[in-house]
Amino acid sequence: MGELHTETGGHLPDVRLAYETWGTLDADGANAVLVLHALTGDAHVASHRADPSAGWWEELVGPGRAVDTDRWFVVAPNMLGGCDGSTGPSSPAPDGAPWGSRFPFVTLRDAVETERRLAEHLGVTAWQAVIGGSMGGARALEWAVTHPEMVRGVAVLASTACSSAEQIAWAQAQTQAVRLDPDWAGGDYHPGPGPVVGLGIARRIAHTTYRSAAELEGRFGRAAQGAENPFGTVAGPRAGRYQVESYLDHQAAKLVDRFDAGSYVTLTEALMSHDVGRGRGGVEAALAGYPGRAFVAAVDSDRLYFPAESERLARLLPGEVPVHTIASPIGHDGFLTEYAQVAEELKAALEL
Amino acid sequence: MGELHTETGGHLPDVRLAYETWGTLDADGANAVLVLHALTGDAHVASHRADPSAGWWEELVGPGRAVDTDRWFVVAPNMLGGCDGSTGPSSPAPDGAPWGSRFPFVTLRDAVETERRLAEHLGVTAWQAVIGGSMGGARALEWAVTHPEMVRGVAVLASTACSSAEQIAWAQAQTQAVRLDPDWAGGDYHPGPGPVVGLGIARRIAHTTYRSAAELEGRFGRAAQGAENPFGTVAGPRAGRYQVESYLDHQAAKLVDRFDAGSYVTLTEALMSHDVGRGRGGVEAALAGYPGRAFVAAVDSDRLYFPAESERLARLLPGEVPVHTIASPIGHDGFLTEYAQVAEELKAALEL
Repeated sequence: MGELHTETGGHLPDVRLAYETWGTLDADGANAVLVLHALTGDAHVASHRADPSAGWWEELVGPGRAVDTDRWFVVAPNMLGGCDGSTGPSSPAPDGAPWGSRFPFVTLRDAVETERRLAEHLGVTAWQAVIGGSMGGARALEWAVTHPEMVRGVAVLASTACSSAEQIAWAQAQTQAVRLDPDWAGGDYHPGPGPVVGLGIARRIAHTTYRSAAELEGRFGRAAQGAENPFGTVAGPRAGRYQVESYLDHQAAKLVDRFDAGSYVTLTEALMSHDVGRGRGGVEAALAGYPGRAFVAAVDSDRLYFPAESERLARLLPGEVPVHTIASPIGHDGFLTEYAQVAEELKAALEL
Repeated sequence: MGELHTETGGHLPDVRLAYETWGTLDADGANAVLVLHALTGDAHVASHRADPSAGWWEELVGPGRAVDTDRWFVVAPNMLGGCDGSTGPSSPAPDGAPWGSRFPFVTLRDAVETERRLAEHLGVTAWQAVIGGSMGGARALEWAVTHPEMVRGVAVLASTACSSAEQIAWAQAQTQAVRLDPDWAGGDYHPGPGPVVGLGIARRIAHTTYRSAAELEGRFGRAAQGAENPFGTVAGPRAGRYQVESYLDHQAAKLVDRFDAGSYVTLTEALMSHDVGRGRGGVEAALAGYPGRAFVAAVDSDRLYFPAESERLARLLPGEVPVHTIASPIGHDGFLTEYAQVAEELKAALEL
């Protein structure tokens, strides 16, 4: 899609955005829905003919589902800075070498700009709904505030109008862990596995914030992993693990396998920058100007995106916006696993 | 104090335990109180003639205070494995080189055994009270269950009968961050600054769990630190920080300055091992056998040692043990800063 001048002064001479679509766009280009992924998500929201594997919101998007692809043209891009086809730190720069440390700082607004161009490219004139959870919800809200004329409805699940001190604190520890790994090499490790240990630690931190303490306790308690001994050997440090450690090791390994560390840092810092009120007189003023429909949902046990933050968001949006509660004991990840609880309400609120 | 065979089969040929005392021991050796520090605490609970600097529970221990040093002989040891005078990874092994990676795995029970010998050495025949918060509370409970005949009363603030999945999860990320630092050198970095970046990350993680999200939000929100720009430079990653990052940087720097990384890992893994029920038929059976007085307190906003865990502990202790609530918006650290709220109840419950 050509060059992009980023919000903070960076420059990408030629941006590529990967995306998937479902359904057919009408002649007026207005039967469209945009679905935005969370931090380590991707464009594969749901299965389709070209890729029949289940997507991360499989039950939400498809024929006859809440976002009915027989009626709506659904678009899901991989975010700018990501590693699933869109331009990111692992992509080649004009000199042919990976961007690595030269990849500019990007914000959620930069991502919205690339997605606006995608809409133009596809012939989409308006979004009936822009939908996302977690970082996807943050991006959806940026869309609504940046292009209110294009966004007829916005759905923000388990997300906020701006990143909190808590979210920034956890993000800092994660990006520092990645950068501490000698294989980070200042961000210029591509190609190659890169800082897999550091990225794994970041994922363990993140994953713990995505789940509830009660869920971890109920599933694992302080049990040892199989026959492993989480205590010390006869002399020296321990070699075995507790079950909860094994679980987090598994989560780390899965992410490291599928995600680029440079993209992880880039997107994490983009999320730290999230503030729909930036340069707009604050969050209240920014949200007050959005004329479209809004749907807000929170997971009751979420300890990263607190329900109280969703309440605040709903209060600041014009009109009476209720907060729909996803009841789940597992925490933040409930927006990915239990969204069916609010699918019908979402459909009704956004007139889908 | 000579050699120690550790619970899990390790061997230390000559253990040294640093401690401080206040007041005078009676002829029968039974007017004694033991105060046990938290993870990165030390023996300096309160000021005294030899060291007039304020201690970490200054208002609790002293002439006329809840733990009245005109009446009680107060002892505070630095935990085995620590770095404040007691034998730990930074101490010299018999060959004169630091223990480093050769330092054996230790448990809270090993610490109790060294403290039992200290009591013997000092002529203490019984503790009127063993008092601690966080890891100190875990150690106090181990004391009560291991030597009920010596412990007339136990005070457990913001702590639990066994470490939870949540606590183990956060501990894992911390020890991994330390070990990822190339300056960890497998644990054999002594002397020298060692893995200061990794230890700093561990402290940031720990400190975030010690405070409440609401406190971080109220103090820092998402403000930038002074004139720093937490967004990216014109091209490339960001250089500036958010206020909450600067705050965590400061907490990290303070700890790195005063604490050995090897001790941090050793004590963290000792705390992960905490389970008063281990080898005793479980927590319930272990606690049911303690005949002494008990005092339990929790910080209402604690998100690392949940008040519900204190409730469970109190329920499992014999007799009617209430949970005293420390009301504080700051989280776990409230046991260090707001203990005065429960000092009189502690004094009454333990007949001090």
